[in-house]
Amino acid sequence: MSESQKPVIGIIGGTGDLGSGLAKGWAKAGYPVVIGSRSREKAEALAADLGHGVRGDDNVGAARAADIIVLAVPFASHDTTIAEIKAEAQGKILVDAAVPLVPPKVSTVQLPQDGSAAKIAQALLGEGVRVVSAFHNVGAAKLHKGGKADCDVLVFSDDKEARDQVIVLAGVVATRGVGGGVLANSAAAEALTSVLIWINRQYKVPGAGVRITGLDDTVQV
Amino acid sequence: MSESQKPVIGIIGGTGDLGSGLAKGWAKAGYPVVIGSRSREKAEALAADLGHGVRGDDNVGAARAADIIVLAVPFASHDTTIAEIKAEAQGKILVDAAVPLVPPKVSTVQLPQDGSAAKIAQALLGEGVRVVSAFHNVGAAKLHKGGKADCDVLVFSDDKEARDQVIVLAGVVATRGVGGGVLANSAAAEALTSVLIWINRQYKVPGAGVRITGLDDTVQV
Repeated sequence: MSESQKPVIGIIGGTGDLGSGLAKGWAKAGYPVVIGSRSREKAEALAADLGHGVRGDDNVGAARAADIIVLAVPFASHDTTIAEIKAEAQGKILVDAAVPLVPPKVSTVQLPQDGSAAKIAQALLGEGVRVVSAFHNVGAAKLHKGGKADCDVLVFSDDKEARDQVIVLAGVVATRGVGGGVLANSAAAEALTSVLIWINRQYKVPGAGVRITGLDDTVQV
Repeated sequence: MSESQKPVIGIIGGTGDLGSGLAKGWAKAGYPVVIGSRSREKAEALAADLGHGVRGDDNVGAARAADIIVLAVPFASHDTTIAEIKAEAQGKILVDAAVPLVPPKVSTVQLPQDGSAAKIAQALLGEGVRVVSAFHNVGAAKLHKGGKADCDVLVFSDDKEARDQVIVLAGVVATRGVGGGVLANSAAAEALTSVLIWINRQYKVPGAGVRITGLDDTVQV
């Protein structure tokens, strides 16, 4: 792609609540978006509903078409889906949005033995893929209503350039993208999701989120 | 203590940056505060500087005098300090503010094998102590200047009543205390500290913090 073109975003698990919300937000802003699903027909049908030029395909097709792959599948399907798209992901940025929830206690932090879902993804995909971790704490409701999520998105990666690209994408669908450091730091955002689920239940609110204080809003972050 | 009295707060590691900042904030608001240190003389000297009736003692003495014990020591001293005050803590609330940073890479999340510092504290102290985890992400600078920290304080415990007491204390020294669920969820706040250190360095800000969005500010939380 040339510098003036927007990257093609392929959302794996794009028919889910988060995946389809992100698809809508990016497509509205002019990004070419392909949503992937295990069922191509289901993805095509939802893509037509979303409009804004969103296309549907199976997961492998969506990964193949993408410059940047976003993985938005339940943690139970995380490793198998990565295996499915591994070949198509080589040389690309893969944004892991999977949260390692362990049902039924989804409001209790239970991080994987390896530290984080993102570290598992990097290990499975190998060094040819630049893994970024983000979008764990984004409530999709506002995206589906056509707005931006009212929260900061923490973005983690061992690759600065990839992290910066995803910070830009985060600012399109949420209040702001904020760099959070190396990929290992993804554990913080992954763990926070269970905390936010607990807060939603305890305080009876629809979608608690996180905002980083102490950063000047006028600063380009 | 009677219901109308404020609890005595004993801050272990109370001569450190966070501990002395918290001491100042609570003492200004009328809480009886004892700061503990390995050196009683050092604690007494700092207590005199802090004013507002703050007293100084050694760590065991501060724990003995306290209704609520706050542990604000570096992680390297976490387990040994707990062993030192274990007997004095029985039947009380112990608030663990220790963050499991692993120098020199303090901006990289490196949670302990057992999941969190707070879980280690509960295991060491036994069931006779109600462990609460909080104050991991509070910048002490504003407290030392006489103000409140500009952030929410996430408060974790397996004991609701203890959690609620510490949520009140958090609201005295920071914007707001917010319940974050069971003690295991402390992993999220402990991990966040490394993320905030990274953000401070990357964006060249003095004290990034966290705020929970989506909670009505007028709601008593």
